[in-house]
Amino acid sequence: MIKISLIGSGNVAHHLIHAFESSSEVELVQVFARHKESIQLNISEEKIISDYKQLKQADLYIISVSDDAIFEVAEQLPFSDRLVVHTSGTKPMHILSDNNRKGVFYPLQTFSKNKTVNFKQIPICLESENPEDLKLLHQVANLISDKVFEIDSEKRKALHVAAVFVSNFVNHLYHIGEEICRENTIPFEVLKPLIMEVADKVNYLNPKEAQTGPAKRGDMQTINAHLKFLKDNPNQQEIYQLLTQAILNQNEKL
Amino acid sequence: MIKISLIGSGNVAHHLIHAFESSSEVELVQVFARHKESIQLNISEEKIISDYKQLKQADLYIISVSDDAIFEVAEQLPFSDRLVVHTSGTKPMHILSDNNRKGVFYPLQTFSKNKTVNFKQIPICLESENPEDLKLLHQVANLISDKVFEIDSEKRKALHVAAVFVSNFVNHLYHIGEEICRENTIPFEVLKPLIMEVADKVNYLNPKEAQTGPAKRGDMQTINAHLKFLKDNPNQQEIYQLLTQAILNQNEKL
Repeated sequence: MIKISLIGSGNVAHHLIHAFESSSEVELVQVFARHKESIQLNISEEKIISDYKQLKQADLYIISVSDDAIFEVAEQLPFSDRLVVHTSGTKPMHILSDNNRKGVFYPLQTFSKNKTVNFKQIPICLESENPEDLKLLHQVANLISDKVFEIDSEKRKALHVAAVFVSNFVNHLYHIGEEICRENTIPFEVLKPLIMEVADKVNYLNPKEAQTGPAKRGDMQTINAHLKFLKDNPNQQEIYQLLTQAILNQNEKL
Repeated sequence: MIKISLIGSGNVAHHLIHAFESSSEVELVQVFARHKESIQLNISEEKIISDYKQLKQADLYIISVSDDAIFEVAEQLPFSDRLVVHTSGTKPMHILSDNNRKGVFYPLQTFSKNKTVNFKQIPICLESENPEDLKLLHQVANLISDKVFEIDSEKRKALHVAAVFVSNFVNHLYHIGEEICRENTIPFEVLKPLIMEVADKVNYLNPKEAQTGPAKRGDMQTINAHLKFLKDNPNQQEIYQLLTQAILNQNEKL
């Protein structure tokens, strides 16, 4: 049995607690939450604490709080030389307190409290100061996920930039698509199967090979018609122009 | 039984033939292909023709060829006053020949010959010159798909622009994500579950509500760190800047 305590009650903490509770090889020792009522999971009440002094011995302490609070929380832990990790994609490992052995346990996914996720499919990115701790983190991660990776702080920074492109920016393009539909009284429903298929294709094809459309074909007639269509929305037009140019440049490189 | 003949042997034609063959209420009369060997489906050989003069009577003729060939093909059909439709997302209905009754039967999806698709989930966008023909097109579309929409040529133009944003441009952002991973020796695998989840969210949330990330939070510290990270790739940096600004502008509108 691996003894784990969790500090935090946000979306990531919520999903991690749920995943650990489902594993027969993890003993969830305690969950720290400033406000006990924020823990809406089926765990016995005596395990939920809101005073750091009550934290018992565990093999692993996972700090899953907002980025800006990690340092402060890590400094308040009333023990030393134990394994303490954070779950952030943006913060380096070293921001944790020097009092304890440091590590990162970063599940790369966009979590919403009300949408269930299959944790087995969520990549977990690991890092630690020493090989022994990394071994334990691997053991824990493998219990709840089929996709475990070692990613150091430097790589995690790059990974986060890439994640912004494929999630936040992609979502903004969905928003533009929805807006164009709305303004032309077309139901956005029409585009949803296309959105799903384009995403699904990354599982079969390299995105560069999967590219299609007017820019890929160098079809300037359609591109110019589209730019003209967007003339009343300079922001959308600029995005169209820039991404089309990027795809055209890509063609030249082939 | 609705009698349908198909003209063309590309990806869309291929998937349509397959869908019609699976319906007990459609009689696939003939398939026209310039090169018979391009039809790799289990249909009897006498149905495949490569001479327009052999085209028999049918209730509906579907021209599924490349955009630039539609007009020429329509002009060559050796009959008049029959219902002839094309399957293009970009071309208006009127480019079809005046010899026949015009319509559009546009399945909005990205097709690859080797990847099976569930046609029931593919939106079909319909248009026709007269209500009687529209009724027949609805009947046919409902036989193979659960998602049937009436979209006139003007709206279809807007829809195509929106589709470029949510498919070609989104795919280019996947490409950038893959490139950043590759350059930093991170397996692109790490990002795939995130890609799928962001796409899946459009089924539950409006994209504007679903937005997350540094730009949404107005987290200028992370944004500036990312821009610095991208300093050696002006093209990626420009795309980052423009899309971040677009999300920041969006925040102000809320």
